[in-house]
Parts: sequence; structure tokens; C-alpha cells
Amino acid sequence: MSFGTGTTGVYPIAATPFHPDGRLDLDGVDRLTDFYQDAGATGMTILGIMGEAQKLEPEESRAIARRVVARSRVPVVVGVSAPGFAAMRSLARDAMDAGAAGVMVAPAPHLRSDEQIAAYFAQAVEAIGPDVPWALQDYPLTLSVILSVPVIARIMAEHPSCVMLKAEDWPGLEKLTALRKLQADGTLRPFSILTANGGIFLDFEPERGSDGAMTGYAFPDMLVELIDLHARGERDAAHDLFDAHLPLIRYEQQPGVGLSVRKYVLMRRGVIGSDVQRKPGPALSATGRAEVDYLLERLARKDARAAL
Amino acid sequence: MSFGTGTTGVYPIAATPFHPDGRLDLDGVDRLTDFYQDAGATGMTILGIMGEAQKLEPEESRAIARRVVARSRVPVVVGVSAPGFAAMRSLARDAMDAGAAGVMVAPAPHLRSDEQIAAYFAQAVEAIGPDVPWALQDYPLTLSVILSVPVIARIMAEHPSCVMLKAEDWPGLEKLTALRKLQADGTLRPFSILTANGGIFLDFEPERGSDGAMTGYAFPDMLVELIDLHARGERDAAHDLFDAHLPLIRYEQQPGVGLSVRKYVLMRRGVIGSDVQRKPGPALSATGRAEVDYLLERLARKDARAAL
Amino acid sequence: MSFGTGTTGVYPIAATPFHPDGRLDLDGVDRLTDFYQDAGATGMTILGIMGEAQKLEPEESRAIARRVVARSRVPVVVGVSAPGFAAMRSLARDAMDAGAAGVMVAPAPHLRSDEQIAAYFAQAVEAIGPDVPWALQDYPLTLSVILSVPVIARIMAEHPSCVMLKAEDWPGLEKLTALRKLQADGTLRPFSILTANGGIFLDFEPERGSDGAMTGYAFPDMLVELIDLHARGERDAAHDLFDAHLPLIRYEQQPGVGLSVRKYVLMRRGVIGSDVQRKPGPALSATGRAEVDYLLERLARKDARAAL
Amino acid sequence: MSFGTGTTGVYPIAATPFHPDGRLDLDGVDRLTDFYQDAGATGMTILGIMGEAQKLEPEESRAIARRVVARSRVPVVVGVSAPGFAAMRSLARDAMDAGAAGVMVAPAPHLRSDEQIAAYFAQAVEAIGPDVPWALQDYPLTLSVILSVPVIARIMAEHPSCVMLKAEDWPGLEKLTALRKLQADGTLRPFSILTANGGIFLDFEPERGSDGAMTGYAFPDMLVELIDLHARGERDAAHDLFDAHLPLIRYEQQPGVGLSVRKYVLMRRGVIGSDVQRKPGPALSATGRAEVDYLLERLARKDARAAL
Repeated sequence: MSFGTGTTGVYPIAATPFHPDGRLDLDGVDRLTDFYQDAGATGMTILGIMGEAQKLEPEESRAIARRVVARSRVPVVVGVSAPGFAAMRSLARDAMDAGAAGVMVAPAPHLRSDEQIAAYFAQAVEAIGPDVPWALQDYPLTLSVILSVPVIARIMAEHPSCVMLKAEDWPGLEKLTALRKLQADGTLRPFSILTANGGIFLDFEPERGSDGAMTGYAFPDMLVELIDLHARGERDAAHDLFDAHLPLIRYEQQPGVGLSVRKYVLMRRGVIGSDVQRKPGPALSATGRAEVDYLLERLARKDARAAL
Repeated sequence: MSFGTGTTGVYPIAATPFHPDGRLDLDGVDRLTDFYQDAGATGMTILGIMGEAQKLEPEESRAIARRVVARSRVPVVVGVSAPGFAAMRSLARDAMDAGAAGVMVAPAPHLRSDEQIAAYFAQAVEAIGPDVPWALQDYPLTLSVILSVPVIARIMAEHPSCVMLKAEDWPGLEKLTALRKLQADGTLRPFSILTANGGIFLDFEPERGSDGAMTGYAFPDMLVELIDLHARGERDAAHDLFDAHLPLIRYEQQPGVGLSVRKYVLMRRGVIGSDVQRKPGPALSATGRAEVDYLLERLARKDARAAL
Repeated sequence: MSFGTGTTGVYPIAATPFHPDGRLDLDGVDRLTDFYQDAGATGMTILGIMGEAQKLEPEESRAIARRVVARSRVPVVVGVSAPGFAAMRSLARDAMDAGAAGVMVAPAPHLRSDEQIAAYFAQAVEAIGPDVPWALQDYPLTLSVILSVPVIARIMAEHPSCVMLKAEDWPGLEKLTALRKLQADGTLRPFSILTANGGIFLDFEPERGSDGAMTGYAFPDMLVELIDLHARGERDAAHDLFDAHLPLIRYEQQPGVGLSVRKYVLMRRGVIGSDVQRKPGPALSATGRAEVDYLLERLARKDARAAL
Repeated sequence: MSFGTGTTGVYPIAATPFHPDGRLDLDGVDRLTDFYQDAGATGMTILGIMGEAQKLEPEESRAIARRVVARSRVPVVVGVSAPGFAAMRSLARDAMDAGAAGVMVAPAPHLRSDEQIAAYFAQAVEAIGPDVPWALQDYPLTLSVILSVPVIARIMAEHPSCVMLKAEDWPGLEKLTALRKLQADGTLRPFSILTANGGIFLDFEPERGSDGAMTGYAFPDMLVELIDLHARGERDAAHDLFDAHLPLIRYEQQPGVGLSVRKYVLMRRGVIGSDVQRKPGPALSATGRAEVDYLLERLARKDARAAL
């Protein structure tokens, strides 16, 4: 399956594993790649905010991209957001040369007016090349940029190479409905929508029109099952599964420390060897770990995957 | 029980009921006051952000304060945050004259450095009067002001009249632990901590040292039961109750539209006559209402209070 | 002359005089009103940010509006920006009842997308009444809201009652040119543009299409002369006058402390009795006063009005 | 003369010249390096915000650093601010290996509380190495981080390798006085202060305690003369020179377009071949160029350096 306007399913946002001393763990990158695919992911997204992309040196980013693309059997999307378009161009070129399926671009944090935003993405598309498929990241909580429905519609109209919206506005349910309505009206062309926000609204988003999930929750296998239940119309079963995981999903969705939680669970699941974040990044306290352990214990009563 | 450094339990953040045409509903104010107290609240907080205080004319704010104080059998805390200290002084004087137990003050959104924050609260205390008990609101998500542990410690040291922290930093669990550790060490004097953030971490906050909740979740009776279970050390039962409500708590915790959800549930519970927010404010869509109805239905299987 | 789309000249942003103990100085308000008119102002703007509006109690704001309107022989525009539309409505109604020529509205600081901004002003116009003439304040440095040319054009198209733009974007010269070009093309209806930013670009703004100045520089008599020189096409003379004042204009344009400078010069000119700002507000240090004195002394060599 | 706590004089912030098609102009880099030194600069700062550092690819940054250091007879300070500490470490190592005298570090834009700021610089110093001399950049207008006097004092106390403050807070005069007072009291160790903000307060900053200028005004030869006049105590002459240049200094100090002005004047002075900014960046309009030409013409009557 390719990365395009018809993409569905789960694209995990990949964590980046480090050794306890902060060095990149490329074997861990391999294990993570296998883990996401064995979980049923239809694609992967690497070098996003949750992949600690901003803490990597350029050569490390390139090494990760090449490693994941070489090993993956599913499409790989590479985050190329950068402070300047020169760096964005070179990251995108590297990624596509290595065999990536496409890239992901977020708005620069200083953007405010619709005009500024539209101009920014016009320059971004010029930088990455108009033939490179890309996902538009809508994440106001962290980026502090508001992509209104009209501005998203404008970007989609102006750039046919944008094939996907990574939706993580908060609140975001009505936005999904509004975008899908414009598409149903024929005033907006088709594109894929995968939702994020740590998955905390994945019980309702597919009914609102999302095509799946692009988030890094430490149980991607559960995300795959959940999207599948939604696709089959098994609403109650989907909510039962979601509700069982919600206490942990919620705990993992904390800014900053949430990535520590995610890495800790991935470590406890045996996927990565260390839960360390590269500096600067908070560590999970002993109490925090005990709280996660307790949540996993409670979850295990309902979902055997959590019995670690 | 008075409003002071030893305060525990649940202080609901009161909604402000309006008629469908936007007029203030003072009978609804009475019913809400009774409802919170019948639910077991140990106090009440009015005219906060969730009470739409910024949309009221000064006379309306005064009318609500007098009405609630006159009817309430528990201490009433009145939000007095204002763009200027003259307005804050006059609101605080009115509230205290009417019989309020104390006031709540949030930092002005432009504050950045510790020095600016400390100076702001020094002027706020001068404005409200150094003898008026007050709660410090720590809510960076909405106010965009970071109150670090050292700056909270400084405010508490400089202003004995501050008796409570309304804690809604996100993430906030480690902050609770850090503050309580300073108190245990004797380097920080005692004060009450009630937590907010819509209640979304109330399964762990009491273990971290909070004294209860100050939030407006539409089931204050559940909050009272939850805090009570924590107080009795019934950890698993507390988590069972919390987990049952978490899907709705999460749905209600959305910025902006969350208040519509809260008012809709209060309306469905028969407490207020209309779920309208005064302009500007989003309304809950038909789909949104149906989603809340579905969540209530699912909740009713575990908690009879949700069978409406 | 009325306040309308054809307004030209100088509308000083009035300072609000206080007694040294912080009480409102209503006699000073009278003297200031006379001073601005004797200087040749074609109108006045009161209760703006530089009028410390946010530090006044509602009754004080009303008292000032009534006092100025009663005394003024030129149109008075009243700032009615408020945290909520209820307060904005009541301020606007009071001001218009008292005899104001119109009001001024700034965007609320949280606004980001064009859609949010357009919706905000639609609600503001509903609040103040569609028949009340108003000025749109474009001041991103303080308000952190970007009003792009397209969004200004949209507001002007949707609200015929908006008769003026108070332009203080920074940089702003190209924006003036762009707006005037749209008007010349016939795609944008006529409206008045007065510029602010403390006057620091008043050497070029009239050539770019502004109709005059709306700022509070402590030499409004110089502003009147400057706009007049521009109107007569005396470019070099206009620049000579401007350049003579620029060191002081620049010194006065500092955020926060700039108002202290302005009040200090107004005090030295004998217009107000005290240069105190109501709390919270910085005071001019002794060194700062000496620097202003030195600038006045240097200015006096070229402009006798500065010989104090 | 070395880069250290006793540094005085003028460190121009170097522009980065590009060819009209956006390619780096390394010959232009040589000419600029010579120009700044022939103007009497005591040092140079490269790869700052005004050097469009964020638009360069890492290899370009390294090439510029090596080129300037190889050619310069005065100390070169290299901007190493980066989104992550890995990139900052590698930039700093490259720069120092190439022979730079030190580096410059700005706070990351998300920092708010004193605690966050102090922790950030502790990690930055760990990244660049505790033996590398560095300048602390205090530029809230662009970075939106407030470095209060106490937090600057803390950074200076904790990091002996910080030898200089690049001061461009606005307003900033009282901050200079406050810092120098702490040093006079002996509570703060000595460090150099060079001021920036486009030079718009260079008539008073040396009297307040600054040691010189670190800014990119297109007449560095005038900056050198100005600092020299201040050093010799020729106050009136310093103000005369400053006042003559103020209209252009003011015009050049506009965010965004100001760099176009600066590059245009440098081009007119024959130093660089093109005034183009690398994308994204505004260009100076024909009207803008004409305004600058007019300002240069007026300036030439008082300063022959402007007769181009």
C-alpha cells in the first residue's frame, strides 16, 4: 500500500531509541521498525517531535531515515520540519533518495495570519519539490499555529502533492466533520486524515471521518485493532477496547514527560533497551514509573498485551 | 468548615447559567448552589474562567456573588482576576462585603519572569487587602504563565494570606510531589492544594499530596465520592470509579467546547434549564450531543447517577 | 468635522492624569482636553491602552468619557476594548449616550486565524450596535494579533460602520501602500487611516497614504504642524521638523516606560500636575528624567516649544 | 585584543551575502569581513539572526565560519543557537576548531520561568563545553524570552565561561544600570556588555554602562566613531553624530524588512553585490528603496560617508 490520499490504518509516530549515555541506538531502531510492522501498522512516521528530531544532528537524522527505510516493508514518512527551507530541502532530498514514501511538514511556530501560513507552505513545497507527497501537521498545542478549516482547504487546493492531514487540533472532532463535509460537497478534494493527540479521541474520530491514527501510543497493536473495529462498525466493542486503555493513553499524553512514559512502556514490552530521552528531556520519576506499572497491571485484567 | 490552609474536599467551579437569550438565570444560580452542596461539596468557587466571568458585566458579577453567598451553607470563593488592580480591588471588596470566604487570583497572561510574577502578586495582595484569604490559580494551559515551584514557594512565603493553590499545571503530578516535599522539609509553610484540569488526573493526585478537587466536572457527587475513597485509602475502588467516568471527564476537558459539554450534562441532570454559553462561546453540535449521550449511556451501566 | 471615512488630521491618544496617590485627576482631564484642542487636534481618542484604560474601574471610565465629551469641541472616540462583549456593549452604550463620536475596538489577544478574527469583529459590531462608527486598532506589537491586508479588507467589507483604521503594525509602510492600492483599484471601500506607533514613522506615512496621526506624543502641536507640512507637499520641511523631534519620539516609544516619559513631558509642559502612572506601571528613574531633560534641551535649539 | 569580560568597542553582527539566485556569496563574505575591520571593529559576530543563520544548511554555516575566521584579524564570535543541544555542540566544536574566539547562545523561544532558563543554559554550557567563552543574547522582542536581572545574575554566577551580555531588551536602559550597579556592589562578577537593538539607543547606552555595540547597522564606521566619542566623554558630539544617523537607524530597525534595508545600504556602499535575502524573507519595494535613498541623501549633508 502506498502513501497517498487513500491511506488508511495506523502510522505509528516512531520513538527514537537512545543508549543510556545518549548515543543513538540503531539496533533499537531496527527492533522498533519490526515491532510497529508486526503490530499491523500500514506505514510509519519517523523524525517527528515525538521522535526527538530536534535533538538529533543532521547526520543522525539521515542515518535513522536510511536505516528505517531499508528495513521497513510499509511506507515510511519522514518529518522534515526545520527552521529554514534550505535545511528542509536537504532533509527531504535525503529522505526521498533513501526511499521514503513521503515527508511531513509542520508550520513554523511564528506563523499567525492565513496569508503567512499559505505563503509558508508555498515555500515549503517549493523547497521539498512539488512532486514529493507530504502530510500536513496540524498541532496547535505544541506549535501554537492555528490552521483553520479555510486555510487547510486553501493549502489542499494549492498543493496537490499534499496527500494527508495529520490532525491533532484540540478540540478537533468538529474540525474533522467540517473538512469531510466540504469534501462531500465537492468543494474540497480528497485527502487522507490520520489523527494524533496521543490517541485520546480515537473512540470518536473514525466516526467523524478520520481514516486512522498517526500517533505513538505504546500499544500500536491496540490502535490497529481499534481502527479495525471501527472499520467493521463494531462501535461498542471499539469503545470497550478504547476505555480499557484510556487511563494509560491519558497518562501518556502529558506534554514532555509523556514521551518518557511511552518509552518506559516500550522498554517494559521489550522493544527498546532504555527509556532514556536525549537531553533536554524530563525523566520519569520512581513514583511515575510505579503509577505506570499500576496502570499496566489494571489494564492487563482486560487486555493480555499489558501483562508484562 | 472555613476556607484556609487546612481546606480539604471538593470545591466545584460553578458554571453560570444563562437563559437561551443570553440573560443571566439567577434562579438557575440558586439551583446550582443547592446542587453542589447536596452533592457534598465542602465549598464553592464562583466567577472563574469556567463561570464565564470575563463575559459578565460588573453588576452581574456582583449580583451572582451576593446570590450565591446568601444561599450557600459552605464557604464561597470568588474569582477576582481582572485586567487591572482597580477592578480587582473593587471586585474583592464587593465579594468580601457580601460574605465570601475568600477570593481567587490568577496571574495576568503577560507575565513571564519570576520577578514579574512576584511583583504582580505583591500588587494583587495590596489591592485585595492583606487580610483577605485567597487561592493562587496555576493554570498555564489557558493563562500561558509558568509558575515554577520556586516562584510558588516565594509567593507563599511573601503572602501569608494565600491559603490555597488551585493546581492545574499540565503535567502536574511531579509538581505536587515537589511542593509537598518542600513542606515536609519545613522550607515551605502549609497550604491547601486542590487540583483542577477538569479532574483528568484525580486518580493519582490525592496520592501525590492534593487535598481534594476544585473543578467543575458535571458529576460533583462523583468527585466527592472519589476524594472520599482516596481519603479512606481504597485505591482500587477509587480507580474503578475514576476509570468509569474517565471517558466523559476526558470529553468534558476540551478547551472551549468542554464548557458546553458540562452545561449540557448539567441540563440533562435537571440542574440548569439551558446549556447555552454567553457569546462568544461555542455550542455543542448535534453530533457532539449524541456523543455525550452515548458516553452517559455507557457510564450508566457502572454508575446509576448517569442514568438520565 | 465629524468622525468618518474622510477624517484627517491628528487625534491624540489622551493620557489619563492621576494624582500622586493614584486618584483620578478630573481637572487634569479638562486641562488635557483643552491642550489637545489648542494644539490643533481634529479629534481625540480616550481610554486607549496609553490612557491606562485597563487600570480604571468602570465608573471611572464613564466619568472620564462624560467629562471629555462635555468639554471637547472636536469629535471624541472612546476605546471600548474589553475582555467580554457584555462589558464592551455597556461601555459603548455609555460612551455614545454621553455624546462620543464613535468608539475604537482592538482584537482580543488570543485571536490567531483570519476566521477567528472575522468572527470576533462580527460579534463586536453586534455588541456595540451596527450604527456606531468605530475605528479598528491594528497593533500587533502589544496585542500579538496579526491583521493581514486580506483580513482588514474583509472586516471593512463586512462592517460599513468601521470608518477608520488605527494603523500601528510594525513594519507598516508597505501595508499602508497595499491598502491604498486596493482602494484605488476599487476592490476596497474608502476609510480613514491614522497612524500610531508613537509617531516613529510619521516622516513617511502620509506619503504612503495615511490621513494623519492617532498617537499620544507629548508634542501634539508638532504632530499637527507635521501633518500640515505633508499636506502642503513640503517634504523637506516635514523631514526637518520630524528629524528634530525623532530622538525624543524614539525615547518616548519604549514599551511601558514610554508612557512615563510622555507624562513627564506633559507635566514639564505644564499640562498635567503629576507624571504618575496608576499601578502597575513603571516610573521614570532620576537618570531617565535627566535623559529626557537633555533631549528637550537639545530639541529646544530647533523647536522653541521644547524650551521649558 | 581577545574576546573576554573586558571586551569593548564594536562587534558588527555580520550580514550573510547571497547571490541573486540565493547561493552563498563567499567572496562577498571576504569583502564584508574586510569592510568591518577597516571600519575599526574590535571583533565580529557571525551566524546570528541577522546573518540569516536559520536559513543556512549546516555545511554552509561551517563554510562561512571557516572563511571569516581565516581572514579576520579580530576575534570572531559564532552564533550557535540551535533547536537541540546536539546541533549546538557540533556547531560550537566546528567553530572553535576553525579558530573562533567564542560563541553566542540565545535562549530557546519556549522558555518562561527562571528555573527553565537556568536549566537551559546549564545544558547549553555542557553542550558547548565549559571552557568555551560565550556571549549571552538577551533579545525578548524576537525570542519572546524574558531574562530578568536576577536570572542574568544567576547565569553569570553559574557559568564563568560567559564573558559577555549582548543586550537588546526593549526598553533596556534601566537594565544596564541595574546590572552595573550589582557589579559595583560586588554581588555580580565583571562581564562585558555590548548593546544591539539596531543601535537605536546608542546615544545613551554607553553612559548607562555598556562597553560598546554589537549590531549590524550599515555604517559600522559610524558606530566605531560614536563609541569612541562616548569613551572620550564628548557627549554633545556623540549625540550630534547619533542624531544625524537616527532617521536611517530607525528605518533599518524594522523587523524583517530591516535586514533588506541594511543589505541595500551595504550594496550601495559597494560592500556586497546584491541585497537579496535568502527565502523566506521580504524584499525592499521600489518605494522603500527610494525612501532609503532619500534618507541617505539627507544624511550625506551631515556625514560624508553617506554620499554614495
